[in-house]
Amino acid sequence: MGGDLGATATVPAVVDFLSGNPDVQILLFGNESELYGQLGGQLRDRSGHLPSARLQLIDCPQRVESGDRPARALRHKRESSMWRALAAVAEGRAAACVSAGETGTLMAMGTTVLGTLPGIERPAICTALPTVSGRVYLLDLGANVDCGGETLHQFARMGAARLQVAERLREPRVALLNIGAEAGKGNRAVKAAAELLAADVTLNYVGFVEGDALLRGHADLVVCDGFVGNVALKAIEGTARLLIEQLRATGRSRSGWRSWVARPLFKSALGFLDPAQYNGASMLGLRGVVVKSHGSADSAGFGHALRVALAEARGGLPDRIAARLAAVTSGH
Amino acid sequence: MGGDLGATATVPAVVDFLSGNPDVQILLFGNESELYGQLGGQLRDRSGHLPSARLQLIDCPQRVESGDRPARALRHKRESSMWRALAAVAEGRAAACVSAGETGTLMAMGTTVLGTLPGIERPAICTALPTVSGRVYLLDLGANVDCGGETLHQFARMGAARLQVAERLREPRVALLNIGAEAGKGNRAVKAAAELLAADVTLNYVGFVEGDALLRGHADLVVCDGFVGNVALKAIEGTARLLIEQLRATGRSRSGWRSWVARPLFKSALGFLDPAQYNGASMLGLRGVVVKSHGSADSAGFGHALRVALAEARGGLPDRIAARLAAVTSGH
Repeated sequence: MGGDLGATATVPAVVDFLSGNPDVQILLFGNESELYGQLGGQLRDRSGHLPSARLQLIDCPQRVESGDRPARALRHKRESSMWRALAAVAEGRAAACVSAGETGTLMAMGTTVLGTLPGIERPAICTALPTVSGRVYLLDLGANVDCGGETLHQFARMGAARLQVAERLREPRVALLNIGAEAGKGNRAVKAAAELLAADVTLNYVGFVEGDALLRGHADLVVCDGFVGNVALKAIEGTARLLIEQLRATGRSRSGWRSWVARPLFKSALGFLDPAQYNGASMLGLRGVVVKSHGSADSAGFGHALRVALAEARGGLPDRIAARLAAVTSGH
Repeated sequence: MGGDLGATATVPAVVDFLSGNPDVQILLFGNESELYGQLGGQLRDRSGHLPSARLQLIDCPQRVESGDRPARALRHKRESSMWRALAAVAEGRAAACVSAGETGTLMAMGTTVLGTLPGIERPAICTALPTVSGRVYLLDLGANVDCGGETLHQFARMGAARLQVAERLREPRVALLNIGAEAGKGNRAVKAAAELLAADVTLNYVGFVEGDALLRGHADLVVCDGFVGNVALKAIEGTARLLIEQLRATGRSRSGWRSWVARPLFKSALGFLDPAQYNGASMLGLRGVVVKSHGSADSAGFGHALRVALAEARGGLPDRIAARLAAVTSGH
């Protein structure tokens, strides 16, 4: 029910996803009449089959509103689609939860309903960004805002497990986001983390990456404090959006044919942040797979978030992460 | 002598600057023969006059190399152009120092030669970025990497003084860079700073700005920890550069005429980071005006750094900052 588009984005994505993944079942939590309304025109998938045998609607009387504070929603919205979908994961009725609801609330409810893995206080958020040669995963992106070196080390291990399981990278290149490439640069947390990562034989640690090299493809995973990661991610998105707006405005202010000719170029630039390729942030450190879809994602974007969740669930990500974290505490 | 282009960028900029500012004198520190070589073809300015009466060359036997570590340069490079130019400011023979040398070394030498204002441990770096409606100043950008709320408060006061003096903004809008717009968001330092800034009647504090709104023109000055500011600035620059590269590559891969038609659009996008409009980072908190020109700036970019230094020197910026910092310590 969450996100800017609600069921108009999620329902078509679910129908399409069921059609493309014949061994998957979907539990759709929300307002039943809204969901039925959206399903009406789309009950048949592309091959003409009804996916409904693998699609179950679960009516939820409450809804998390955008104005609800996480702490309040946590107490008073236990009949919401968000809570109930997480409960289905906790009870083993579902392998993963995908939501377009508010991040803070999803994180708070995820932590309460599923619990965190040993040694994890709050889940870390990890998402992909495009690079010149592929993609880079960045974590944390917002929940852990005062991290020490050990927390950054946890992120590195969790993120590496995520990339091994769901991206099939055997030895993902792990870097630390820093303000210089030379040894000795950085704040206290990054300096401490650099020593821990360099000494961790289970990680393919490649050193520091600066803000302007984030998208250059030097690493598969870039680890940082949630405050820094959130600012960096939003700065990248904001700059891309602004530049594209400016290019469009310049195109429009010139004669029509110039703008028409330049259109394919804009389209390519927009692909830079195409949610159908990059949407879906993983909440790592929970006892279950939870993927957050961006609030503005359309059905193609939500479809990608579903694929992210499927890959993580199939790979048994929470167990893999638990094993890697246990190895840290036992010194391996 | 510093920067990627050395005297080939600085000398033409200086000649042009002297021509445009008939009441200004320049002391040019560096390798005399290199400087003469560059001056050879340019001794006459645009109006045909020799600016040499207002241009003095001071030969410096040493040069800070790009591989010199700041601590080492500080001990062993006291005959370099960087040290001597700073000494000229310290001794009152110059009103400002502009350098394209390495940031860390300039900061270390600036701190040693000029000293910092009371209550300031390290200078803070402040630079302008373009927004949809004008420009925004961001500080700190790298030297102060583990800031508490009080340090962020100092930055706000120093930056506000900078904008009043050199941009002639009467009440610059001051914001804190944060990971959410709502009260209560942020890490410990930002939460503490928010209280201090809100209570400071000498500041026009407008609240939080997120990474994606940095370039939206909601504030004139955005304050943050040097680690976060450095990452944000480089992420913005890196994204803009990458997007422009991609657009160009797309343009080239299409037929020649398409690329030709799209060229004015690229040019406009490049203007987004035009050093001739934005180059020149101020080191605030020193007992003298010091401006760092970007290492990659050409002569137009270096010219802008000279104009920044002139505006700060004319406005008596260090004294203005000292007065505002003294008001903090005495509780006004």
